Amino acid sequence: MILKNARYLIENNGTWSERQEDLLIEGNTIQDIGNLEPLYDQHEVWDVKDYLILPGLVNGHQHTPMSLLRCYSDDLPLMEWLNKKMLPAEMKMTSDDRYWGAMLAMAEMVKSGTTAYADMYIDMDTIAAAVQETGIRASLSRGMIAMDSNYSDRIEESRNLVKKWHGKVEGRITVMIAPHSPYMCPPDFLRDAVILAKEQNVPLHTHLAETADERNMIQERHGMSPVQYLQEAGFFENTSVNLAHGVHFTEDDLSILEGLTGGVIHNPVSNAKLACGTADLVELTKRGIKVGLGTDGPGSASTLDMFMEMKAAAWMQKLLQEDASALNAHEILTMATRNGAEILGIGQETGSIEVGKKADLLFMNMNQPHLVPAHQDPSLLVYAAAGQDVDSVMIDGKLIMKHRELLTMDEEKVMFEAKRRAEDLISRI
Amino acid sequence: MILKNARYLIENNGTWSERQEDLLIEGNTIQDIGNLEPLYDQHEVWDVKDYLILPGLVNGHQHTPMSLLRCYSDDLPLMEWLNKKMLPAEMKMTSDDRYWGAMLAMAEMVKSGTTAYADMYIDMDTIAAAVQETGIRASLSRGMIAMDSNYSDRIEESRNLVKKWHGKVEGRITVMIAPHSPYMCPPDFLRDAVILAKEQNVPLHTHLAETADERNMIQERHGMSPVQYLQEAGFFENTSVNLAHGVHFTEDDLSILEGLTGGVIHNPVSNAKLACGTADLVELTKRGIKVGLGTDGPGSASTLDMFMEMKAAAWMQKLLQEDASALNAHEILTMATRNGAEILGIGQETGSIEVGKKADLLFMNMNQPHLVPAHQDPSLLVYAAAGQDVDSVMIDGKLIMKHRELLTMDEEKVMFEAKRRAEDLISRI
Repeated sequence: MILKNARYLIENNGTWSERQEDLLIEGNTIQDIGNLEPLYDQHEVWDVKDYLILPGLVNGHQHTPMSLLRCYSDDLPLMEWLNKKMLPAEMKMTSDDRYWGAMLAMAEMVKSGTTAYADMYIDMDTIAAAVQETGIRASLSRGMIAMDSNYSDRIEESRNLVKKWHGKVEGRITVMIAPHSPYMCPPDFLRDAVILAKEQNVPLHTHLAETADERNMIQERHGMSPVQYLQEAGFFENTSVNLAHGVHFTEDDLSILEGLTGGVIHNPVSNAKLACGTADLVELTKRGIKVGLGTDGPGSASTLDMFMEMKAAAWMQKLLQEDASALNAHEILTMATRNGAEILGIGQETGSIEVGKKADLLFMNMNQPHLVPAHQDPSLLVYAAAGQDVDSVMIDGKLIMKHRELLTMDEEKVMFEAKRRAEDLISRI
Repeated sequence: MILKNARYLIENNGTWSERQEDLLIEGNTIQDIGNLEPLYDQHEVWDVKDYLILPGLVNGHQHTPMSLLRCYSDDLPLMEWLNKKMLPAEMKMTSDDRYWGAMLAMAEMVKSGTTAYADMYIDMDTIAAAVQETGIRASLSRGMIAMDSNYSDRIEESRNLVKKWHGKVEGRITVMIAPHSPYMCPPDFLRDAVILAKEQNVPLHTHLAETADERNMIQERHGMSPVQYLQEAGFFENTSVNLAHGVHFTEDDLSILEGLTGGVIHNPVSNAKLACGTADLVELTKRGIKVGLGTDGPGSASTLDMFMEMKAAAWMQKLLQEDASALNAHEILTMATRNGAEILGIGQETGSIEVGKKADLLFMNMNQPHLVPAHQDPSLLVYAAAGQDVDSVMIDGKLIMKHRELLTMDEEKVMFEAKRRAEDLISRI
């Protein structure tokens, strides 16, 4: 397919600018960019002059089945939220519940412009089936928790997940190894997870430094910081890591993380809603630590709209730094696209619009009262646009949404099943 | 008109709950609520069972013509933003520019669920004409600045504004008296503004305690805090006040403000984007000081979507208080509706759904992937919904938007004229 008159955004040395050319999509790949008029008669041609095209957004941290628990429990302290509300509900979830929760999350993600995302949960075959069906790009991981030394089944499950799904489904699925967090993983378990990641050559994914309590807990248990605790397990040696949160780092922690392969996924909405604090993105960036953006699960964030995360990231960083120029719209866009893709280990595939990359594209409808005038597109996208302004979505060269209609999912059915199962789930608690 | 099967939200002692009844709208007023089946054959009947209905949102602080400057200048320190970007552009605005900027802002406000708002600007006859045309409810004020004692023309202009527009246009327009801010108004001028407000029995509106710099400036000039400076001018004696911002209050300031008639309009997005800080809403509420929400002008906030402000208010307050339970969804909804209306002095007319009030209603489309399941509607509205989820809007008993189509504005023309004028404006600087 040729996208004719494509007005699209590219990033160069941190600055996003607009170009207008034709894009040739063959199979799942952007094969050519330029004036492709000579090729018009050999391809299907879509004149996309009415849209502003950007690379699909990458949601770097998520727990999709928890969409069944969206707004089930808000405005509660974190531990009460987790122990009294989330965990009892999650314990009762069936595989079917998880499937429809994941489908609902994928419908929401596509409708708000996410084309690739990272998922940490259990029952990952079920989630992989939803990924296969919906056409989204996903980096899947089995969130592993252990309280003692009987953890080999979870390591095996993760190994099998890699074997079964890594690089599969037209390459749309990749896998990460995910020990849940420093506080849910004893040292031996962490070390075995690291060994597995190296053996399989896939990234590690974990929650890290989300709360001040976590820091105190690890200090008490192990006499070191959560970052040091991961370092002791070999976490930062020759593996790429996706570290979700990163709110509470010390100077020593930052020294350890400098030069890291992978990066930190910042989840500003979830961190605010649960009053965890705001990660210092300026400091992380200064240290050369890559930052991407994520929503965290819908049980905390309530929304999977990455346009909200972009806004929240900018607003909160300006407040934290007491500097209106901190973290500008260009930096935010890079975090939500290229950086996220690189942290997920799929930076060669997606995260920008260039020849050779997969065609993961958003077609934005900018002809709306809240998006005019158009003085600066990056600012408009970050500060004024919302997920609903995405008109169409292409993932891996296929149109997954056209003019707000999902093409690979029966939207009404997904909502019906998710509602029904959510109600039933709550009634069983 | 009878709204049949109206599933609507009402607030009782701070808690929002859902009811399902019929609403009878006669003229501009909600005349009856209940089972109105016996009246079906005497009225136009609209079955609204597909929507969740809430009272229209009240945007308590705005400068509509600045929508021409949306995203013209972001990510700059406040003083650079104001002096190098906003003021030079505003100086070049023509009356026509202001008209189309106001129209664009009203289109955006209606499309994102705002039914009543406060405007502080110049050339208010022009803005009043736009209000008359679009059907929105507005509380207008001439933002008055004086650097010396030659200010009588602005006082006269404000007096004329009251005479010409207060209570006019089917009662949709009210007027406030708006000395711009402590730092833009000498003492005599402030006092004359207060006298005028009392004489005309209308509220006062001003910017207050937006930045730490303001506090230092007033301390240096007058040897007191901005709040004390207003108090000296009689600001809090027998007048209702709309105080925009209120980020930097001291203990003494709060004592002065306790028992205030009117309240503080919190603008979390603008305050974050310009790195001004976050108002302490928990403390204000504890002192019995009413809090409403506003966007501030689109030149700073970039968006006039009150659903974004609701989110920002909740997120930032939880961060400020380091407490996830601080400022829950119910409180936020009250701020965005009833409180805002009361602070604008139109609490008798709007801000809730009850018999005798004007029919200012939002019809929300909740049947969307990001708004299911529906465990808790107030949470969904605050944490998951966006302005684009408003399907239809009624103001003063008239449908102003139906199924996302504006009925009183030519949306394409408004965007065309606003774009054209914005480009021309920037070229003239």
